[in-house]
Amino acid sequence: MTAVWLQDGKIRVRTDVPLPKPLPGEALIRVLQAGICNTDLELVRGYYPYSGVLGHEFVGAVARGPEALLGQRVVGEINAVCGKCSTCRSGRPTHCDKRTVLGIVNRDGAFATFVTLPVENLHLVPPSISTSAATFVEPLAAALQIQQQVTIRPTDRVLVVGPGKLGQLIAQTLALTGCELLVVGRGAGRGLELLSARGICTGIVAEVETSAFDVAVECNGNADGFAVARRALRPRGTLVMKSTYAGDLTFNASALVVDEITLVGSRCGPFRPALRLLEDKRVQVEPLIEARYSLSDALTAFEHAQQPGALKVLLNIGEQ
Amino acid sequence: MTAVWLQDGKIRVRTDVPLPKPLPGEALIRVLQAGICNTDLELVRGYYPYSGVLGHEFVGAVARGPEALLGQRVVGEINAVCGKCSTCRSGRPTHCDKRTVLGIVNRDGAFATFVTLPVENLHLVPPSISTSAATFVEPLAAALQIQQQVTIRPTDRVLVVGPGKLGQLIAQTLALTGCELLVVGRGAGRGLELLSARGICTGIVAEVETSAFDVAVECNGNADGFAVARRALRPRGTLVMKSTYAGDLTFNASALVVDEITLVGSRCGPFRPALRLLEDKRVQVEPLIEARYSLSDALTAFEHAQQPGALKVLLNIGEQ
Repeated sequence: MTAVWLQDGKIRVRTDVPLPKPLPGEALIRVLQAGICNTDLELVRGYYPYSGVLGHEFVGAVARGPEALLGQRVVGEINAVCGKCSTCRSGRPTHCDKRTVLGIVNRDGAFATFVTLPVENLHLVPPSISTSAATFVEPLAAALQIQQQVTIRPTDRVLVVGPGKLGQLIAQTLALTGCELLVVGRGAGRGLELLSARGICTGIVAEVETSAFDVAVECNGNADGFAVARRALRPRGTLVMKSTYAGDLTFNASALVVDEITLVGSRCGPFRPALRLLEDKRVQVEPLIEARYSLSDALTAFEHAQQPGALKVLLNIGEQ
Repeated sequence: MTAVWLQDGKIRVRTDVPLPKPLPGEALIRVLQAGICNTDLELVRGYYPYSGVLGHEFVGAVARGPEALLGQRVVGEINAVCGKCSTCRSGRPTHCDKRTVLGIVNRDGAFATFVTLPVENLHLVPPSISTSAATFVEPLAAALQIQQQVTIRPTDRVLVVGPGKLGQLIAQTLALTGCELLVVGRGAGRGLELLSARGICTGIVAEVETSAFDVAVECNGNADGFAVARRALRPRGTLVMKSTYAGDLTFNASALVVDEITLVGSRCGPFRPALRLLEDKRVQVEPLIEARYSLSDALTAFEHAQQPGALKVLLNIGEQ
């Protein structure tokens, strides 16, 4: 089959990748569409050691698996876990010590004609959700993880730093809470325009009020974004770190102690509410689609996705 | 009057410091006893810009103030706040933008014959608490602040890194929660011995289990202690930073995101429960007294307090 293959820091489109064989409890899924995420870009830049098929945001049709699922459109949670270790049994399965992660850790990903995942990871896509919209379920779930971890009060002033692909979803979900929301970027651009068009308050980082926000969400994954978020927080505020970072981060630890700031790392989130929000059209994802490429044009797609300010680049992989 | 004076990174005992004049709403307090804290040592090392009388852990007798307090033993909360700004009105007075902090920020401290503080900052010391024990109220309150900020469950495995003066109080208060507690130091020493004698489990940092603790409290105020605490935490664990740090701290931000770790800075805490715990003898502080010096011997006291492993060094300043 065809697949986007990462090895030694280089990606290429291979056509000779063997068809994956589902293990017991797994389904074989024909991939319909997939999305390129910042984590994919970071994997290509060599931030994490991974070789194999890239891709973890996808919609597919079940080709082999339980009869009720055959031919159905599904999205899949990306952590394949043991279900038996103390971490799984403590209700934190996404942190399972033995997990593999789709296209990220020891498990071939979804930028391919076919992919396998445990059946328990799959969620049916309701007919009212388009395949393009469903491709956003995984990052939308990650956005919702913020509210799984941090109480967002309607009276809170909340800052989102970074109006990129993930920031867009985070802003839309946070706006639903009724909090006083501001999303900032380096300068005017399509990301901020899209949010303004939805009635979300936007601004630029240079003009962010200091010590004024109860919660700040950092979606840039860099030291500049972290500094903006940190500075914007009131004492005892919460800084949510929603992006992976290249390398280490340095911060003034004493100021964090004196101001009693809380930092929260945040990763994968719950799929069911993400599907619900898409079904109810409470979140709009189609305007975030920057471009579509075929799987054979994946390298061009990656180049496009790396452009500053690029929103979601999709790969059209199969027809339903 | 006599006072320990910090200026240009040097401390000296001055005998010519003018008697402080209480402002409206303030009391004049004759200091009986005071304790040297790590923050005092860091102020002397020049980590923060401060000039004036040092000292913020004290017990005194009210010399001028409301009649009901005259002659009474009191301890005092160290943040003098405006009570009117949005931070004060939001229930976070210890973070008041306009605050002065006893012996730390724009307010002469308690290593002196007399000190002033707003009357509302003062708490009467019940007769059953000795003056020496009451000198520990301020750091004991700081220890309790952890439980104001983080839910410590009886089922939690909790690690305290650093069996020093503050770590001792933190360990004793956390032990009261019924959690599974371990306190670690670099090697055997009096700090760990004292805790063992109280039935608290102790160990050395080199042997701390990785990814095993729900909560880790860092009391060392250095990068090594932070690394030990971080490594010990399970995914979604909470790292409480309880010490001020010299300079910046560098950490692997991506690992923090992937493991969804929470960092919490923690500073001053509530005095009333600290007094209650001392009154009920649920916390024992006398064994933590390392040495006592007169105010005129304060420089020797500071040298002693800086010795590695030194516990609480007290200054005997006045007689009741």
